[in-house]
Amino acid sequence: MTKERDTKEQLLFTSSKLFQKQGYHATGLSQIIKESGCPKGSLYYHFPNGKEQLAVEAIERATKMAQEEMSKVLVQENDALKAIDKLLEVNESFELDMEYDGVPVSLLALETSHMNENLRLACLEACVVLLDEIANKLIESGWPKQAADEAAQFIFFVVEGSLILAVTSLSKEPMKLARRQIMEYLNMKLKGLD
Amino acid sequence: MTKERDTKEQLLFTSSKLFQKQGYHATGLSQIIKESGCPKGSLYYHFPNGKEQLAVEAIERATKMAQEEMSKVLVQENDALKAIDKLLEVNESFELDMEYDGVPVSLLALETSHMNENLRLACLEACVVLLDEIANKLIESGWPKQAADEAAQFIFFVVEGSLILAVTSLSKEPMKLARRQIMEYLNMKLKGLD
Repeated sequence: MTKERDTKEQLLFTSSKLFQKQGYHATGLSQIIKESGCPKGSLYYHFPNGKEQLAVEAIERATKMAQEEMSKVLVQENDALKAIDKLLEVNESFELDMEYDGVPVSLLALETSHMNENLRLACLEACVVLLDEIANKLIESGWPKQAADEAAQFIFFVVEGSLILAVTSLSKEPMKLARRQIMEYLNMKLKGLD
Repeated sequence: MTKERDTKEQLLFTSSKLFQKQGYHATGLSQIIKESGCPKGSLYYHFPNGKEQLAVEAIERATKMAQEEMSKVLVQENDALKAIDKLLEVNESFELDMEYDGVPVSLLALETSHMNENLRLACLEACVVLLDEIANKLIESGWPKQAADEAAQFIFFVVEGSLILAVTSLSKEPMKLARRQIMEYLNMKLKGLD
């Protein structure tokens, strides 16, 4: 990796963390420059269109990394439901207040969808990629496509919704409850497929 | 209502709409003053502690109104599941891009929970009040308290999570799917209670 690529990667890494934690509006370019340790000029060199471009590329990069992480977990179990339960277990293990290098899609989507079409489309693409990762695992286990797509959306709904209550109550209990409810629902749907 | 109360109410009404739509950080006091049509001095008179105080009181006001609206819908059906389905139908009827005078709890909670304890607690209180409204309806229909509390959280998870995908995809399909999945799950749980 050249030094230029290092700098760009560092800027995207820092941006991902800050957007995920604080959201789009609360994160300023000066904070990104300061926390990344990169020179000011490098930000304008790599992202001539400024904060919007940086956010779009940060979402794309974080989505790719999240997809790889999900794929690594899902491949550990042949059975789709066991694999999904494993994924939810990993999800539960994240600290609520950590500065995590993840996909800041919920907060960014709620903040920006109505006012910035490029950011909305980047968030939508992130959702589609991650939903497909789960749906494909279910399809491999014999679920029909529509049932798999709907189940993937269900998991997204419950995980993202439970995260809202988790950060609000500073507790992981909502995430644990969500995992149990997701598995109950998926087992019910699986029985209905037979 | 005195003129002073009118002004305060107008400031809270405008703030609720803006926080719900844009979030906390993107909403400035100058925009609230401009869109409310209230004099600048009135904002500092009613909310001497500024934006945080305004947001906390806006959440409290909106929660009270949302609770009243929910209660009105839930009382229309004796059967708890029919009443909840009605509530989800009403939820579906909201326009995604409307400036709605509602509880801006998801976006505000994700934006502010990690950095502002007063806002986090106001969001948490909003969640508790609305969760109890649903749990109490289930308890009235004979659900045991724990099952009712968990079902209420489940509904919150799926509704809030589906809203993220709805605003991101500019489509109500996720909300319709969510309604169907919630009712499937609740019916399954109801059978298990017998």
